[in-house]
Amino acid sequence: MRIEIICTGDEVLTGKIINSNFSYMAQKLEDVGLSVHWGTTVGDDRDSLLAAFRLAGERADSVIVNGGLGPTVDDLSQEIAAQAAGVGLVLDAAWLTRMEEFFARRSRVMPPNNRKQAMLPAGAEFLDNPIGTACGFALTIGRARFFFTPGVPRELRRMLEEQIVPRLLAQSGAPSAITLKRFHSYGLGESHVDQLLTGLEAMVPDGSVKLGFRAHYPQIETKLTVRGRDEADIRAKLAPVEAEVRARLGNFILAEDDQTLEGVVLAALTRAGATLALVETFTAGAIAARIAHLPAAEHVFRRGIVVRVLDQVPAAVGLSHVSLAEMTQVKAEAVARAARDAAGATHALAVLIELDEGADRIDLGGTVWIAIAHPGVPPVEPRNAGGGDVAFRRSRIVGGREWVRLGAAELALDCLRRFLQGLPVVERIDFEKV
Amino acid sequence: MRIEIICTGDEVLTGKIINSNFSYMAQKLEDVGLSVHWGTTVGDDRDSLLAAFRLAGERADSVIVNGGLGPTVDDLSQEIAAQAAGVGLVLDAAWLTRMEEFFARRSRVMPPNNRKQAMLPAGAEFLDNPIGTACGFALTIGRARFFFTPGVPRELRRMLEEQIVPRLLAQSGAPSAITLKRFHSYGLGESHVDQLLTGLEAMVPDGSVKLGFRAHYPQIETKLTVRGRDEADIRAKLAPVEAEVRARLGNFILAEDDQTLEGVVLAALTRAGATLALVETFTAGAIAARIAHLPAAEHVFRRGIVVRVLDQVPAAVGLSHVSLAEMTQVKAEAVARAARDAAGATHALAVLIELDEGADRIDLGGTVWIAIAHPGVPPVEPRNAGGGDVAFRRSRIVGGREWVRLGAAELALDCLRRFLQGLPVVERIDFEKV
Repeated sequence: MRIEIICTGDEVLTGKIINSNFSYMAQKLEDVGLSVHWGTTVGDDRDSLLAAFRLAGERADSVIVNGGLGPTVDDLSQEIAAQAAGVGLVLDAAWLTRMEEFFARRSRVMPPNNRKQAMLPAGAEFLDNPIGTACGFALTIGRARFFFTPGVPRELRRMLEEQIVPRLLAQSGAPSAITLKRFHSYGLGESHVDQLLTGLEAMVPDGSVKLGFRAHYPQIETKLTVRGRDEADIRAKLAPVEAEVRARLGNFILAEDDQTLEGVVLAALTRAGATLALVETFTAGAIAARIAHLPAAEHVFRRGIVVRVLDQVPAAVGLSHVSLAEMTQVKAEAVARAARDAAGATHALAVLIELDEGADRIDLGGTVWIAIAHPGVPPVEPRNAGGGDVAFRRSRIVGGREWVRLGAAELALDCLRRFLQGLPVVERIDFEKV
Repeated sequence: MRIEIICTGDEVLTGKIINSNFSYMAQKLEDVGLSVHWGTTVGDDRDSLLAAFRLAGERADSVIVNGGLGPTVDDLSQEIAAQAAGVGLVLDAAWLTRMEEFFARRSRVMPPNNRKQAMLPAGAEFLDNPIGTACGFALTIGRARFFFTPGVPRELRRMLEEQIVPRLLAQSGAPSAITLKRFHSYGLGESHVDQLLTGLEAMVPDGSVKLGFRAHYPQIETKLTVRGRDEADIRAKLAPVEAEVRARLGNFILAEDDQTLEGVVLAALTRAGATLALVETFTAGAIAARIAHLPAAEHVFRRGIVVRVLDQVPAAVGLSHVSLAEMTQVKAEAVARAARDAAGATHALAVLIELDEGADRIDLGGTVWIAIAHPGVPPVEPRNAGGGDVAFRRSRIVGGREWVRLGAAELALDCLRRFLQGLPVVERIDFEKV
């Protein structure tokens, strides 16, 4: 089935906003086993819209149009859709009532120009928008079924997921039960993950499991798309493959599906009734900024200390008479202990970075000293070495200032995740120099 | 002149990467007074590429094609361009030599498949790529001049700026001297800035100054595009308009051109020989993370403290016997003073946020208490009220957790900028509730 996407609007065409709706839609379709064949971007311009609709109507089976459903004069999608389909516009009285209620609930009177949003091409199929005033609609133009969607991302996302994807799957004749399973890992490069998962798709011989990746440094997302007759069929197919991914990627899997690394760490601390202190240097607050604002972090996050010059760290955590001019494991551990005790926390993560000197360049690196102070009581396992109450990890990351900063923040949070899950804190990763 | 852009590549078409090259190119053209009329996205697929080139060649005067110039088998741009133009591929011996030297300088032998990157359509005009192995080229297909560019963003940017924009301007017959002047402001909404700048374009009656905006919460970018015969002509036209923008937006302009708010603050502190301490609560380290990792911050940034629960702040800055359960201006000022003194810094910025209770929602807000402790000596002006050594600002920001977090970080950094520049710290902004 040939699917096209048409994105409309001067803001997208002029580059004033980055077109993330396109990539969102394309990925969402990939996730259910459908593919986009062609993308078109045009402005709020009658001739361009008409030409784009007609061309896509000749080439495609299905077309998703995004944008142009708003109340202002430059929102032209309904009008040009009707023109392209050779029909008139008719009032959808039910939607007009819904819009009026929408405004009434907000103690406002609906402005007259919003009425335009209830004018749909004759014969169009209504697509509900439960969270906005721009309803969608489906209409046949040429040989293709067109789906018109709002430009506001959260409205688009909901309409795509709830109303358009099921219609596309029905149209494609594919089994409509589809599940996407995602694993997030850190420490293995994309090609390494790919190689570790060789032969995985073949575990389900009918081809109904597809493997894909998405890299966003420093994490890699591994995606399994599974099709089946129904949910039970999918679960039966997915279970052994899912187990195999966990077995092969092992400790490197830091989260699954909608989880995040910081969310997993926060949940583990919460479950343990633990509290956290942080000491950051060149990561500059980036670790705190990922975790401390999250809901429920107020019960866990005690204190973050950010110091830019390594030798100013001891004073900031109340460690007198210690110089970090010459870093050692013992000193890093002392910093973590002092931060833990000063904040009255059960755990402290210290990330001390010796950044190479000089201007930024691709081979500029940093030596990263990570120490995790903890209560030192069971069930802490002996394999988390480094003294009874501190786990330690040293690494060297190269690739320029940003690479070091982002990589060190990820490595440190991941060490804390590993520690809290009873996994080895020290395990070779692809992104470090040895 | 009708310009189209064609973006190629499976990674873009499947949404695996967000197509920021498109918006970059479109903005760059807007900045010099040119407009994109149509955008096309296709994958690494012979039929789609050929169809896209032919369609654009019928419609446009100029076409920029991005991607597909790499060494691998799925990089097809040269081959399909030649096919669309009805010519063969010929070796560009000069570029082959340049590539071999490129590898030699890195002590590597050029792999044989890179030779493909020196095969250009017969009659194509060579476009240099001084920083990569994918050279560009220009070629006429149908009635349009096509410019083929590499997908690697930094290579694209350089080629677009140095080689393609001048050719497009020459083709369009527009005066080729063009300057873009940018102002970054915070505190005024886009429509408010627009209204304040009414009539600005008319100051230069020949229409050679164009005004534009780009909003990325919480900042607004105001752009002036000026065309002229030459640099002197442009400077003469720009000078009064530029002065007028500064006069009308006044204290709200936080930076110009490539400057950033955090860069301006860091530079002002550096010039003053000052050092900085930070106290953050719900901003969670986001302020530190913007400034403390910058080059030269190691001489200025002394210490950041992140505490999630307001009442744990006093202990973290060594203020015993103070409870923040009931916030007051006096307490906020005491926190800033204590942080300044504990860190041995000349200045401290404290951002204390009382976040509304309950689940996230659009009308959830936060009360933001900002105190700037300083040395309290001349040339501090009396209008920065709040005691001889502290400036103070209170605000209320509404719009959900993320809106509050980002808005408070911006407001606090901007208050520090205003203080350091001798401007009033308290000035009504559009993004706060009163």
